[in-house]
Amino acid sequence: MRDDASDPTADDTDASDDDVPPEVVERIRGDAYCDTLGIDLAALEPGYAVTELTVTEDLLNFHGTPHGGAVYSVADAAFAAASNSRGEPAVALETNVSYLDAVDVGDVLTATAEETHVGGRTAEYEVVVTSDDERVATFRGRVYRLQD
Amino acid sequence: MRDDASDPTADDTDASDDDVPPEVVERIRGDAYCDTLGIDLAALEPGYAVTELTVTEDLLNFHGTPHGGAVYSVADAAFAAASNSRGEPAVALETNVSYLDAVDVGDVLTATAEETHVGGRTAEYEVVVTSDDERVATFRGRVYRLQD
Amino acid sequence: MRDDASDPTADDTDASDDDVPPEVVERIRGDAYCDTLGIDLAALEPGYAVTELTVTEDLLNFHGTPHGGAVYSVADAAFAAASNSRGEPAVALETNVSYLDAVDVGDVLTATAEETHVGGRTAEYEVVVTSDDERVATFRGRVYRLQD
Amino acid sequence: MRDDASDPTADDTDASDDDVPPEVVERIRGDAYCDTLGIDLAALEPGYAVTELTVTEDLLNFHGTPHGGAVYSVADAAFAAASNSRGEPAVALETNVSYLDAVDVGDVLTATAEETHVGGRTAEYEVVVTSDDERVATFRGRVYRLQD
Repeated sequence: MRDDASDPTADDTDASDDDVPPEVVERIRGDAYCDTLGIDLAALEPGYAVTELTVTEDLLNFHGTPHGGAVYSVADAAFAAASNSRGEPAVALETNVSYLDAVDVGDVLTATAEETHVGGRTAEYEVVVTSDDERVATFRGRVYRLQD
Repeated sequence: MRDDASDPTADDTDASDDDVPPEVVERIRGDAYCDTLGIDLAALEPGYAVTELTVTEDLLNFHGTPHGGAVYSVADAAFAAASNSRGEPAVALETNVSYLDAVDVGDVLTATAEETHVGGRTAEYEVVVTSDDERVATFRGRVYRLQD
Repeated sequence: MRDDASDPTADDTDASDDDVPPEVVERIRGDAYCDTLGIDLAALEPGYAVTELTVTEDLLNFHGTPHGGAVYSVADAAFAAASNSRGEPAVALETNVSYLDAVDVGDVLTATAEETHVGGRTAEYEVVVTSDDERVATFRGRVYRLQD
Repeated sequence: MRDDASDPTADDTDASDDDVPPEVVERIRGDAYCDTLGIDLAALEPGYAVTELTVTEDLLNFHGTPHGGAVYSVADAAFAAASNSRGEPAVALETNVSYLDAVDVGDVLTATAEETHVGGRTAEYEVVVTSDDERVATFRGRVYRLQD
């Protein structure tokens, strides 16, 4: 569905209206929590973001599988990036997640956030989390858009 | 509502039917992800758990406020502890969270999970996250109970 | 937890600050959809409402059990009444529901909505649906509060 | 995205493996609650369904706009049809809905349910509700698949 998810850090001298301003990319990349967990921003466009997280031992729960909080966090990071991609601050109101399939240590989780609605003071995003191209979780989030 | 949330690690020679077996407490305490984020188990009873997380700089998002993933994770940890408190494994099917109020660095988040329904192969838990006794988030989760 | 859920239609000459104004009660009672389905308003106070629905044959789905839409609707009606009880209009942003137990024809569903948070432009309500005092569904909703 | 959403009642002598058995179509069409509200089944394929509801005066709430329960119900009906389309009974565990845009009397709501995951004893469906090709609500549901 998307084939143009370019690396937001690439040197792009042909910046179009569809590009996220460099200062916004830099701000979103400087997320301390993502750094703590090891979540990377793999793509960022207006209303669209991809994040990645490799499942390491320190992300496991007491069952020995990735903690729900880790799976949620990679999805939430994509949601936050996509909803703040235009430089206008937005904060989460509500989110929900369906856990669909098991994930193992060493797997790479990829979360893809797409904007599904913008209206008034809110916007909606759907995030699909995959591992090896298989859907392992579905997330939806709604933000409140702050205004000056 | 609860005034008997005793320390599950306390030496209790009067263990009643309401106690969580020590090996279950130990297993839940040995959660690697909670250790990574700094989430502590403050109380554990059958169908009931309290977790705590102090908001540190490394849990902040790019807005400079606690990341949604961190707030979610302390709630999810209480949900996981409460739903596995009887020693029978349970895995998350669905969760949802409402973000209600801002939290600052240094604040202590307390998540209290209570069992609201057990039936057939599933069970439901409601988790309230507070900071300074003010509700900052509400979480609900549904588990699937694995059986031998 | 509540023992003062008085009949909002009662002639009350000692109206306190806790009463819902008669014109608001009348407006909420005049809900066409509730009339279509047979949903009654059983109690209304500021931030609190109780609705009831008797399960009739015309509310069944193709399994021969009450349709999810009917169970949802009695909860949503309590949510709408509670969130509009102060006369200030509020509209639903997000809702979620957990279906916990089966219900039969002839059963009376009772939905009790309680306000769990009010802040800024939104408010949160939790609704428990019971049948014969057993919880059959849990609902949570968030509204956006319109202002002049 | 789908261009083959054929009328399930059409006389189709070239029935393929992708067809829903006539007795399943008939069973789903005989839903009393849908008949009560005026919800029509517009398409049915394995894991896929479309329902429609015209907003009439008797579906309005006390604000004079379509009741959330009515919008939910058309989505829930598509979810129920899609999740029972293979003739194996499935019951709802959890659903959530985001209300995105206003709808008026006379508008036709169209709900399109697509299967996003089937695994073990559960399956997940996403439902988009539109009016005049504009998204007005997003719904997600998870079912438990009963087995003999």
